[in-house]
Amino acid sequence: MEARLQELKKRLTEINDLHAAAALLSWDQSTYMPEGGAEARGRQIATLHQLAHEKLTDDRLGRLLDDLKSYEQSLPPDSDDAALIRVARREYERAVKVPASFIAKFSNHTATTYNVWVKAKAADDFSLVRPYLEQTLEYSRELASFFPGYEHIADPLIDYVDEGMTAKKLQALFGELRKRLVPLVQAITEQEPVNDTCVRQHFPERDQLAFGELVIRQLGFDFRRGRQDKSPHPFMTKFSLGDVRITTRVKENDLTEALFSTIHEAGHAMYELGISKKYEGTPLANGTSSGVHESQSRLWENIVGRSRPFWRHFYPRLQKVFPSQLGDVDEETFYRAINKVERSLIRTDADEVTYNLHVILRFDLELAMLEGRLAVRNLPDAWRERYRSDLGIVPATDSMGVMQDVHWYADTIGGAFQCYTLGNILSGQFYAAAKRANPHIEEEIARGEFGTLHQWLKENIYQHGKKYTADELVQRVTGESLSIEPYMDYLTKKYTELYEL
Amino acid sequence: MEARLQELKKRLTEINDLHAAAALLSWDQSTYMPEGGAEARGRQIATLHQLAHEKLTDDRLGRLLDDLKSYEQSLPPDSDDAALIRVARREYERAVKVPASFIAKFSNHTATTYNVWVKAKAADDFSLVRPYLEQTLEYSRELASFFPGYEHIADPLIDYVDEGMTAKKLQALFGELRKRLVPLVQAITEQEPVNDTCVRQHFPERDQLAFGELVIRQLGFDFRRGRQDKSPHPFMTKFSLGDVRITTRVKENDLTEALFSTIHEAGHAMYELGISKKYEGTPLANGTSSGVHESQSRLWENIVGRSRPFWRHFYPRLQKVFPSQLGDVDEETFYRAINKVERSLIRTDADEVTYNLHVILRFDLELAMLEGRLAVRNLPDAWRERYRSDLGIVPATDSMGVMQDVHWYADTIGGAFQCYTLGNILSGQFYAAAKRANPHIEEEIARGEFGTLHQWLKENIYQHGKKYTADELVQRVTGESLSIEPYMDYLTKKYTELYEL
Repeated sequence: MEARLQELKKRLTEINDLHAAAALLSWDQSTYMPEGGAEARGRQIATLHQLAHEKLTDDRLGRLLDDLKSYEQSLPPDSDDAALIRVARREYERAVKVPASFIAKFSNHTATTYNVWVKAKAADDFSLVRPYLEQTLEYSRELASFFPGYEHIADPLIDYVDEGMTAKKLQALFGELRKRLVPLVQAITEQEPVNDTCVRQHFPERDQLAFGELVIRQLGFDFRRGRQDKSPHPFMTKFSLGDVRITTRVKENDLTEALFSTIHEAGHAMYELGISKKYEGTPLANGTSSGVHESQSRLWENIVGRSRPFWRHFYPRLQKVFPSQLGDVDEETFYRAINKVERSLIRTDADEVTYNLHVILRFDLELAMLEGRLAVRNLPDAWRERYRSDLGIVPATDSMGVMQDVHWYADTIGGAFQCYTLGNILSGQFYAAAKRANPHIEEEIARGEFGTLHQWLKENIYQHGKKYTADELVQRVTGESLSIEPYMDYLTKKYTELYEL
Repeated sequence: MEARLQELKKRLTEINDLHAAAALLSWDQSTYMPEGGAEARGRQIATLHQLAHEKLTDDRLGRLLDDLKSYEQSLPPDSDDAALIRVARREYERAVKVPASFIAKFSNHTATTYNVWVKAKAADDFSLVRPYLEQTLEYSRELASFFPGYEHIADPLIDYVDEGMTAKKLQALFGELRKRLVPLVQAITEQEPVNDTCVRQHFPERDQLAFGELVIRQLGFDFRRGRQDKSPHPFMTKFSLGDVRITTRVKENDLTEALFSTIHEAGHAMYELGISKKYEGTPLANGTSSGVHESQSRLWENIVGRSRPFWRHFYPRLQKVFPSQLGDVDEETFYRAINKVERSLIRTDADEVTYNLHVILRFDLELAMLEGRLAVRNLPDAWRERYRSDLGIVPATDSMGVMQDVHWYADTIGGAFQCYTLGNILSGQFYAAAKRANPHIEEEIARGEFGTLHQWLKENIYQHGKKYTADELVQRVTGESLSIEPYMDYLTKKYTELYEL
């Protein structure tokens, strides 16, 4: 059995290496590639994914997993090898259920749809992309149909990135969250708007980048095992557990853009960098789910990075970097500026409180489309209606509305949005557990020390990679199941104080 | 047959894409990769090459080539498809002759040997690496033995990179060249040494890089289809015909290091960038041989880049970049400094005239070892003896002698050195042909115009990629077979004038 297990690991490492190579080709495409490389690069990335898919769906891998079934059952369920076989089987079974012909036609379709979306958004004309989106909806249902036995048609799409999650569970969770957020937003936005002009001055790119790197180095991002580059959209990518990179973009007239995206992506990166080296090259060497991944980026970006103790330490340092812009701005004014809550139209620019309303309405619209309750042609109206009811504001154009996010135009409808709000919920729950275990965390943060928090996250979350599912992890780490209470407590306390509600 | 040909192209493109991905992983390793990425990166590159090898040696590819044999014979020999099938068959047949087990053990061996060489060179102790080099010699013979029917045991190793070349042909060519170079070097070094202190001042890195990029942009390197980055050793690499990159390294106390390596690598890059787009993704989309490749780097670096007309145009511009260093240095002094000939020990630092003697002696020593006339234990003595007889100078240490070049310690003994001198010979022959076709080339160069020369090289050499062998190309382009005369004419004329011989 030892030999079979080695053979399994060897095959999985090959698959891992093909994906890692494709990831490097994509990273290069977004950072350094000259324009002339675009055409061949697309083909090369597709070739690598195609070969990885062939290797993952190889019959011999299936037989190996069958052979290892009794061995797996003989192992303690908590053992690394049992987890490896379980995760590998899950990936194999998912992959073999989807016909290669479907993958080919769907990836052609999304490539075309993406290009049409770019043009439709620029022309502010949803009708251009509508037929493509209708086809995407059909393909999304077809993809779900390869996984019969689900309760809700969105479940297989959600389960793919957030294993164990279902539409039903999320609807309950998100419904309750929305019920509490709408009045909170209402209460806040009845107050005098915060003046955030202090972060909207001119901040030279080079200084912004240097300050951001200083911050994340201090949080614990290890530049010997990673780097930061610039790209049109910020992202985190991993080539191995020793090489995890992030990118950012800088707006010289907005100090918050690069800084918080840097902390956000560093949060993702520290999760990957904290995974136990013993999992290198295997499917266990990944964050366990999209939601848990997002919990780490948001914990560092928002709960830590937008907190009073964080800026107690960093604000004087930031003032030194930008003396002419911030020398006369006091810490409280700055703190209020970076935590300004407002009714706005664009999800990615939204504050901590309203952000989840942007996500939940997309999630609800996805479910309605997949269930057949909402036709794509009625989507723009439904979008406006939900913005009106949830955020009290309506987009004047579809570019600012239903066409703002790339997600539906570059992948399935269903499965892509829930992780953002799940991540917020989990960040509150994990952070509360970290504070219970280490009551002095915030005093340390105020001194610029992040080691205790980082170490707690490594020990409890990062090191395990994909060994435990999100549900198992939450139970192990917090002693309870997924709950919105700690996150709502955090938000309510922070913003009640800030806005004197 | 059309369907079979398409199937062949599809398979070849997959192989091409795997190699291109591996090339990007290597480029990244030398330029931006954080140190923590090293371990997995080595494995990932190996995985990609391994998969490419499996695809190249796939029986189905062999059957496809068999099926296409009669089709190939029905085509005009000059057609692209016939060339594609011929080159693909050559690569397939070479690959299937070498057992996978040999490749595995040899690549393990060279990885170890390389690491031992780094230590042995630092310790200046050849005895540390000697047993590994002895094993390399055995492996080199074993590799040759997979290609029975050769006249000289080095032939298969030479033919791998310089198709059609043999030890016998090269010995005749190099022997004659050496006979003429030794007295030329003798005559030059009897003169007063040239004072080159003007290029040994402090030249800030940023200005050096900017000037080098200005130069190659003007030569015709297209930055929309390539870029330059820094790396420990300069190299050219290609990911597609639309993305060809070069690297350089800068010494702030030596103006010639970055500048001429930039022009050299740009010469390699312009060759690849000039290949016809119709060959993209196939094995025809490569330079035809190592020797022809080197002819293009050396033509641009030496014949153009170290010429009087070139500096007639660029020297005033260089003076403007470095006014305090070169403002008072006249063009003639600078021209003599960058063309200084001297007896020296290190091949990569050698001038145009002595360079070939460094190469030819390595080539002769390789043949002697492969033939069994020279034992590895006697190599350091033989090395010193040849430096004494050919260059009139003897290395005091083996680090400066037999251990100076990485080649034998990272690959086979045999096949790696001939291309450098072949490249020089060919650069002279090609340039003479270009001048015959366009007698005003040098007047144009003196005006900073390189379009005529670049266009001639594209039309006659670059566009064809690997369609013609080096021998065929030389015959087509120059109307004669390989000859040292144009190169010797060039050297003799240039240096007779320069040193008033």
